[in-house]
Amino acid sequence: MGAIITLTTDFGLADGYVAAMKGVILSINPEAKLVDLCHEVKPQNISQAAFILGTTYQFFPEGTIHVVVVDPGVGTGRRAVILRTPRADFVAPDNGVLSYVLSQSSAQATGPGLQQVELPPGLEAVELTNPRFWRSPVSATFHGRDIFAPVAAWLSLGRKLEDFGERITSLTALPLIRPRWTQDGVLVGCILHIDHFGNLITNIKGEDLPRKAVTIEVAGQRILGLSRTYEEGEGLLTLVGSSGYLEIALKEGSASAHLDARVGDEVKISAR
Amino acid sequence: MGAIITLTTDFGLADGYVAAMKGVILSINPEAKLVDLCHEVKPQNISQAAFILGTTYQFFPEGTIHVVVVDPGVGTGRRAVILRTPRADFVAPDNGVLSYVLSQSSAQATGPGLQQVELPPGLEAVELTNPRFWRSPVSATFHGRDIFAPVAAWLSLGRKLEDFGERITSLTALPLIRPRWTQDGVLVGCILHIDHFGNLITNIKGEDLPRKAVTIEVAGQRILGLSRTYEEGEGLLTLVGSSGYLEIALKEGSASAHLDARVGDEVKISAR
Amino acid sequence: MGAIITLTTDFGLADGYVAAMKGVILSINPEAKLVDLCHEVKPQNISQAAFILGTTYQFFPEGTIHVVVVDPGVGTGRRAVILRTPRADFVAPDNGVLSYVLSQSSAQATGPGLQQVELPPGLEAVELTNPRFWRSPVSATFHGRDIFAPVAAWLSLGRKLEDFGERITSLTALPLIRPRWTQDGVLVGCILHIDHFGNLITNIKGEDLPRKAVTIEVAGQRILGLSRTYEEGEGLLTLVGSSGYLEIALKEGSASAHLDARVGDEVKISAR
Repeated sequence: MGAIITLTTDFGLADGYVAAMKGVILSINPEAKLVDLCHEVKPQNISQAAFILGTTYQFFPEGTIHVVVVDPGVGTGRRAVILRTPRADFVAPDNGVLSYVLSQSSAQATGPGLQQVELPPGLEAVELTNPRFWRSPVSATFHGRDIFAPVAAWLSLGRKLEDFGERITSLTALPLIRPRWTQDGVLVGCILHIDHFGNLITNIKGEDLPRKAVTIEVAGQRILGLSRTYEEGEGLLTLVGSSGYLEIALKEGSASAHLDARVGDEVKISAR
Repeated sequence: MGAIITLTTDFGLADGYVAAMKGVILSINPEAKLVDLCHEVKPQNISQAAFILGTTYQFFPEGTIHVVVVDPGVGTGRRAVILRTPRADFVAPDNGVLSYVLSQSSAQATGPGLQQVELPPGLEAVELTNPRFWRSPVSATFHGRDIFAPVAAWLSLGRKLEDFGERITSLTALPLIRPRWTQDGVLVGCILHIDHFGNLITNIKGEDLPRKAVTIEVAGQRILGLSRTYEEGEGLLTLVGSSGYLEIALKEGSASAHLDARVGDEVKISAR
Repeated sequence: MGAIITLTTDFGLADGYVAAMKGVILSINPEAKLVDLCHEVKPQNISQAAFILGTTYQFFPEGTIHVVVVDPGVGTGRRAVILRTPRADFVAPDNGVLSYVLSQSSAQATGPGLQQVELPPGLEAVELTNPRFWRSPVSATFHGRDIFAPVAAWLSLGRKLEDFGERITSLTALPLIRPRWTQDGVLVGCILHIDHFGNLITNIKGEDLPRKAVTIEVAGQRILGLSRTYEEGEGLLTLVGSSGYLEIALKEGSASAHLDARVGDEVKISAR
């Protein structure tokens, strides 16, 4: 069956690791359509993987299988899981990489730190406990090749969720930091992601912005008003980007390099 | 239908942008065969994209659809188009990225600066004005995902050109700098592209070279005679590369690093 | 026929070179399934390509065709070949890139330097001498596009080995440096490969290690004992990695950067 399977990893492309996973999948389902979602997640950066996956998977057809292998705890006690949403299946370590997917299904972490969130109605999950669908022997350091890839391939052939292991009712999620309003009417958010162009993508959604003209403060700089495209105005600009988040960009340059900004840096919005 | 769709962008591979385009295409035509032509075009570098596309598309089967999204003017007034040649279809912003494709069809810019060139017989084009084939709503900053990808997918399903918008008779082209002869018999060209190996690819075609033994001058260095392969001679060498252009290479090294050469640098050929 | 063809090159992804090869293959066999094995082999680094291929190809289905174009001698007298093993077909220059594949089939180089090794029973090879299956004209500098890609495509359509050229009975192999025991019971190996995470992969197989607790010495540092996963212990650690080789890793970091280690550096194991 020509199911689509996407791969998101922190493996980079300089080794054969991604190809080994593809070989394993094609050995089980030669008709699988493989698509690279992203392999340049920074090593072990779970929150970056969660963000990239969470802003991309919705553009794939219903029923797509997304495999995520950013897995610093490989070989330790962390669970490996399948999450099924109405939109897609996810095969991943249970370490927070599915946090955005969960929050888009109203299963959201509320406190600080990694936490368990209950699956709301409509979501299903199993823990991967049935070694029948794994490669044998399983390496302690490469579950991408030995567990996640073969499980995704068997799943794409129509195997049922319960064939892979026991039902579970909660998954691990990262705390998703939400912007907050201060008492004097300032919206305080932060940089979630810096993209290839050096655009700073914040955790502030377009719909959260004040209706009136805004001032954006980031890395000691102030930017007045929102642009609609990267070509408007001069120098630094802000706009609501293609994922719906407020972005800071530099016309014909890298805002990240220009501002020496980093993921986590504070961004303040005021309506004046 | 298993049409081939290639993608050329300046998105890099560190985000989910390319994958989002692929997801959109596969949502419309699950049988499309997706091939990455190049995603490491330097941000907003239209002439580099034009060169890479123009030296690669001819190796794909007839009827391949090539999507190009190097698009600094996204969301502004620049047109989005489909160009149909006897060889292939191109879906792109009308900003010069199709300049080499056009020049290979005798539709060539002749003056300085960006200009409109008339389409010669055999070429057809439409402006993308029919939003029926776009995602809705269209982001102002990511037409690759919201316009170019879905249009390419519908085109691969056999939709007619005129379904996508109005016929147009000219397209925008970059001036392609041609080598020129000086009065004292020196051929003066320039570096068009520097490849992954640091080879300097010039705008001088093999057939333009003097028949007699040549001296090549670049970045203050002189190189005597042409080699046939990268293994001949010692140090710097020149040869007619696989795209038909004169190249300067360094045996077992990077000519670009060795010479500190850049795109646009002058290259002089004399027959002595 | 939907045969799988993988590509391993040192072309990088910043040009259209890899795409040109894919276009040529799809022009001959539109049903071929193309998989990138690795394109970030360092320029002209035959031994790195041999290692990455040799630790990855076995995860692909039987009968997969692996094309390898790391080819500093392109256009010179070096032979171009197809090697057929019970597991897979390989289309490559005869310059040592198949050394690990050969050694896994007991056809192993034993002396120093590049050498000819006889093919054992069960392996077959031909030299690519029949230009009927090449593009015409053949560029002197890009046999990947003009010879290896079309040959792989025709091979995937079921052409016989002997259609491509004459049978040969030996291939060129790199000397694979094996670890050795010193008189005082120290196992001396070296670093074969440094991966994307900065893990140092040695030429010492798990089964060669002393049974007793071990001390590993590398780059002036001593590491006591083997870990099972990258999460155990603190700082530098060693484990038997997913390819079966001893690796040196840094917990949550790059061992390569931490130790300033390079391929070829000595690694010593003692049982105490």
